[in-house]
Amino acid sequence: MNTTVRLKQRPYGYTDDNTWTINEESIPSLSDNQFLVKINYISLDPAMRGWMDDAPSYLPPVKIGEVMRAGCTGEVVESNNSKFKVGATVTGWFGAQEYAVSDGEGVYDISAFGVPEEKFLGVLGMTGYTAFFGLLDVGQPKAGETLMVSGAAGAVGSIVGQIGKIKGLRVVGIAGGPEKCNYCVNELGIDACIDYKSMDFMKKLFEQTPKGVDVYFDNVGGDILDAILIRINKKARVVLCGAIAQYNNESGIVGPKNYLSLLVNRARMEGFIVLDYADKYDEATMQLAQWMQEGKIQSVEHIENGIANFPTVFNKLFSGEKMGKLILKVNK
Amino acid sequence: MNTTVRLKQRPYGYTDDNTWTINEESIPSLSDNQFLVKINYISLDPAMRGWMDDAPSYLPPVKIGEVMRAGCTGEVVESNNSKFKVGATVTGWFGAQEYAVSDGEGVYDISAFGVPEEKFLGVLGMTGYTAFFGLLDVGQPKAGETLMVSGAAGAVGSIVGQIGKIKGLRVVGIAGGPEKCNYCVNELGIDACIDYKSMDFMKKLFEQTPKGVDVYFDNVGGDILDAILIRINKKARVVLCGAIAQYNNESGIVGPKNYLSLLVNRARMEGFIVLDYADKYDEATMQLAQWMQEGKIQSVEHIENGIANFPTVFNKLFSGEKMGKLILKVNK
Repeated sequence: MNTTVRLKQRPYGYTDDNTWTINEESIPSLSDNQFLVKINYISLDPAMRGWMDDAPSYLPPVKIGEVMRAGCTGEVVESNNSKFKVGATVTGWFGAQEYAVSDGEGVYDISAFGVPEEKFLGVLGMTGYTAFFGLLDVGQPKAGETLMVSGAAGAVGSIVGQIGKIKGLRVVGIAGGPEKCNYCVNELGIDACIDYKSMDFMKKLFEQTPKGVDVYFDNVGGDILDAILIRINKKARVVLCGAIAQYNNESGIVGPKNYLSLLVNRARMEGFIVLDYADKYDEATMQLAQWMQEGKIQSVEHIENGIANFPTVFNKLFSGEKMGKLILKVNK
Repeated sequence: MNTTVRLKQRPYGYTDDNTWTINEESIPSLSDNQFLVKINYISLDPAMRGWMDDAPSYLPPVKIGEVMRAGCTGEVVESNNSKFKVGATVTGWFGAQEYAVSDGEGVYDISAFGVPEEKFLGVLGMTGYTAFFGLLDVGQPKAGETLMVSGAAGAVGSIVGQIGKIKGLRVVGIAGGPEKCNYCVNELGIDACIDYKSMDFMKKLFEQTPKGVDVYFDNVGGDILDAILIRINKKARVVLCGAIAQYNNESGIVGPKNYLSLLVNRARMEGFIVLDYADKYDEATMQLAQWMQEGKIQSVEHIENGIANFPTVFNKLFSGEKMGKLILKVNK
């Protein structure tokens, strides 16, 4: 049997018990060219919240009744496809379920890498690519500049900060609470990390950016984006990666009231979608794998268990209860 | 005697009777290398409102008691400077007054052009440069794309629209009221112009941008910026030139609540300051003068009279009572 997580009702604000149904279904049989994947790990990402809204976006919304879209890794357990043999470890958009049928489109065989497969959902997958292309291609940082990154202890933010150090930047993170901040500085090696919950946030922001901010990698939006707009330098780049503070906002999105700082500072704010870089994923994988091997990038994962816990675990993306990449282990 | 307009009190919201003092002062005598300019025309620009706030910006705030900063044209009437001879027509930052003493820094002799001097405050001055560099350098338009411009009947907007047509773009303006909109289409030759005061603004916006918006040149900010963010295409460029709707806002600036459209569409919003292009002003002047000569660009001016009317005329920048470039004639 295959346990699936299907979208039952579009959420308004946070997801809840009525958002998904957990179903027991039979495993579909294979047609020509198809193969069956037994899923081991499911990636949980803030972007998934956006895919649940019925609004035009860079991907079509997940339909009511559809298996929730998710990146996964797993093992090929049956195959009519000569490219994907039984026993191969693969990664692809298999969805929130225990078994998936695929024809190989968008699927990669990662058996040969000799790296734990869940890394392909983190540093060596979309998460790593998002940090890599967002910071380097959109942010265009130059050695000696000051980089700020919000969600600094999060999946993408933790990698952004570490790449920033490799590239010779002063890196100042923002995270929620002293535990996360200490982790970012002591374990990930960034220069400073400011607790956004602290009373003297603005004072610390000014102290830690004596030369202003050249690149801001924004994962959260809201008040933090506004605060950093006050500190940006001439020709600064604000990289819009996400807006966690806004995704579940029932009273509507609040725009950055300090956006005219972009005008005064001849600065820019630019969004990007990692899917646009698909033809360069290989380049990023090679570079990120090398940095991991050299000990320059640590991967941080928070792994929970059991497909039935998908709805509960999903909210940890937004509750601040985890560090690094959130992954759901469903087999293995 | 020299009539001067000095900043008396920083405005909160709109300027009023307490903002400036009109003074009768004696004309200062000249030192070595200085010359005296009898000012003929004073440029009035929305940016001047920003210079009156006591906040860090791209230029220092005008000090209390200082002559109000303004671009001007006039005639040299006395001179100890061999570069600027008596009788020369010049343009520079002479300030809101009838006479100014200068050492020649930032002053250009425009006697040889054979063009009415007030054009050097409009199409052939900062106004034209702002349109030229903002659209072409920051906006990076490509023939066949759709350009939208707000304040389309205004000083900068009227030039942006016309350059857009020269560059082969579909140009859709936004202006206040049917008279301005008709002018933009029938006289300036842009493809369409939407009255932002009309009840069916959003409907018209969708009708007039069937292929979306690739470049938006924003002079106004506020709700119009938000509306257009809904219509932007993938990789669109939003050029932040100004935010007239926000400059006098006493309840604080409102940020663009649809800014995440930049993320979904991998688009960017970028500010610029025309002063950064000082080393390319000549290039712009030559090109704009050529287009004027070829009849491809019309200059639109609204000229009022009398230095004592400066405070009253200034508010016409924001009240919608004028078309094109607002200029105060103080002599001639």
